[in-house]
Amino acid sequence: MKKVLVTYALHKESIAELYEKYDVFMPHDKDMKREQVLEMIPDYEVLIPNFSFYTDAEIMDKGVKLEIISNYGVGYNNIDVDYATKKGIVVTNIPKTTCEPTAELAFALLLAAGRRIGYYDRRLREHKAVDWGVYGDAGMPIFGKTLGIIGMGRIGQALARRAVASGMSIIYNNRNRLAKDIEERYGAKYVSFDELLCTADYISLNAPSTPETLKMIGENELSKMKPKAVFINTARGNMVDEKALARALKEEKIWAAGLDVYENEPKISPELLVLDNVVLAPHAGTKTVEDRHKMAEEMVHNIIGFYEGKYEVSRVN
Amino acid sequence: MKKVLVTYALHKESIAELYEKYDVFMPHDKDMKREQVLEMIPDYEVLIPNFSFYTDAEIMDKGVKLEIISNYGVGYNNIDVDYATKKGIVVTNIPKTTCEPTAELAFALLLAAGRRIGYYDRRLREHKAVDWGVYGDAGMPIFGKTLGIIGMGRIGQALARRAVASGMSIIYNNRNRLAKDIEERYGAKYVSFDELLCTADYISLNAPSTPETLKMIGENELSKMKPKAVFINTARGNMVDEKALARALKEEKIWAAGLDVYENEPKISPELLVLDNVVLAPHAGTKTVEDRHKMAEEMVHNIIGFYEGKYEVSRVN
Repeated sequence: MKKVLVTYALHKESIAELYEKYDVFMPHDKDMKREQVLEMIPDYEVLIPNFSFYTDAEIMDKGVKLEIISNYGVGYNNIDVDYATKKGIVVTNIPKTTCEPTAELAFALLLAAGRRIGYYDRRLREHKAVDWGVYGDAGMPIFGKTLGIIGMGRIGQALARRAVASGMSIIYNNRNRLAKDIEERYGAKYVSFDELLCTADYISLNAPSTPETLKMIGENELSKMKPKAVFINTARGNMVDEKALARALKEEKIWAAGLDVYENEPKISPELLVLDNVVLAPHAGTKTVEDRHKMAEEMVHNIIGFYEGKYEVSRVN
Repeated sequence: MKKVLVTYALHKESIAELYEKYDVFMPHDKDMKREQVLEMIPDYEVLIPNFSFYTDAEIMDKGVKLEIISNYGVGYNNIDVDYATKKGIVVTNIPKTTCEPTAELAFALLLAAGRRIGYYDRRLREHKAVDWGVYGDAGMPIFGKTLGIIGMGRIGQALARRAVASGMSIIYNNRNRLAKDIEERYGAKYVSFDELLCTADYISLNAPSTPETLKMIGENELSKMKPKAVFINTARGNMVDEKALARALKEEKIWAAGLDVYENEPKISPELLVLDNVVLAPHAGTKTVEDRHKMAEEMVHNIIGFYEGKYEVSRVN
């Protein structure tokens, strides 16, 4: 019987199928410490690391029996995939169940940043002046504006679908240009990265975190954005120079931002926490109980599919 | 030359066409006091009252020359339309330019309330504990849920369009059932008011404020909603019993609310201001500078259309 190590506490019923088939160890409540994982890993064929657990060469070297690392997320920058490939360890991710909730949160942040939902809510609660008049404390329209999507994969497209129905035009940049029928579905225009930065009213980062996309949005890129631009990041914090973003927001070089991810989670740059023109969420892209259950199921199916061929497996190597 | 009285300060350029054709009085910055309006109104053929200025029998009796009251909003509960009709005064509103921004804000509040955008933003800024883990502080999905729209006019339909693209199913209640092709466009199912309350996951109020809709959502209606229901109001505050709503939220009889309008604006019930499961906006349904300009243009066109037939006039009586 294969042995499965889960480094964090999931609801047991959401991985019931794993318990039926394999010998599973999962902590009751808290995430496992790295030392504990290193100690136990030599006996396990399957590792299920949390997205905040860095699965590197050391873990894989100790995990002499490791056959599959089943990631509980679509982004897998928490795993040294190249090293896994070298060791012959399969890495899987969960692109299906993470897509809609993440696009949903990206759009929630976009609307909140543009229409100043966080700002209004805070000011009203703090009994600070809010202008109820015609023009004061006005927000930015979404309808009629251009959304630039950086990374037009599943999530980018799910975001585009929402944006089009809300009256936005779509431009996008992607490693590869999309097929014509997909472009037509969203009326999406493929543009260079530079053109996207210069012409979009709203810019959403939906690309994967890779060595190539590290700090892809820094001072230079921010300086190209329109003064009224709104920037949304629900991808990964290390793709953005957080200090440069905070400066651009403070100096009103861009209009607003909506952020779900940060360079040093769960820490957020203190500069961001005091700005009125940013809306902040705690890496909550897929944070609903229903979605987290669906994600667990997809993650479990990757493992069972790998061993039994019963389900499709989303391999990343 | 017709004389036009504007009771509040709009940007002059947004009503430039009025200045060209008529003799316009508009205050420089602040709203006019009621006494001042009463004093001046006998000389004016046209009145443009702000949505917070109650245009009642007294105003109309003094306004012996009044021919048209051109409202700067789609809702016109600030005007005694029955009395205007009796006096032969035409009342107009602006349904076109207010539709998309209001639906946009309703959807922003829906997403924010469901996915807890206001709560997250506040907690992170206040350095209070936020659970970054798998299940803690989780929100409610929007995708796959049922949206119940009360009042399926222009705004309700513009909201439905956004919701459908975000994976929601639509049920609605309306004075009159919509034509089949409109229902089909949104896959919208007509249901009784009671069925809507009992079965919707999200409920949005988009009906006009009339004597019939006064306090249409009170303790009884709230008690019929699902314990996980999210309630959105961007219509008018007097359609909801605000104290009953605050109680239902506090006692978690419903899950959350997103509110843009209140019973005694700009005052908000203090009970609401301390609740974590509500998102509050300051009657900002159309609050963007661009939209407010477009609204001014539509409002002006109602007047010019009335006198010159050059534009379509949106009369409410």
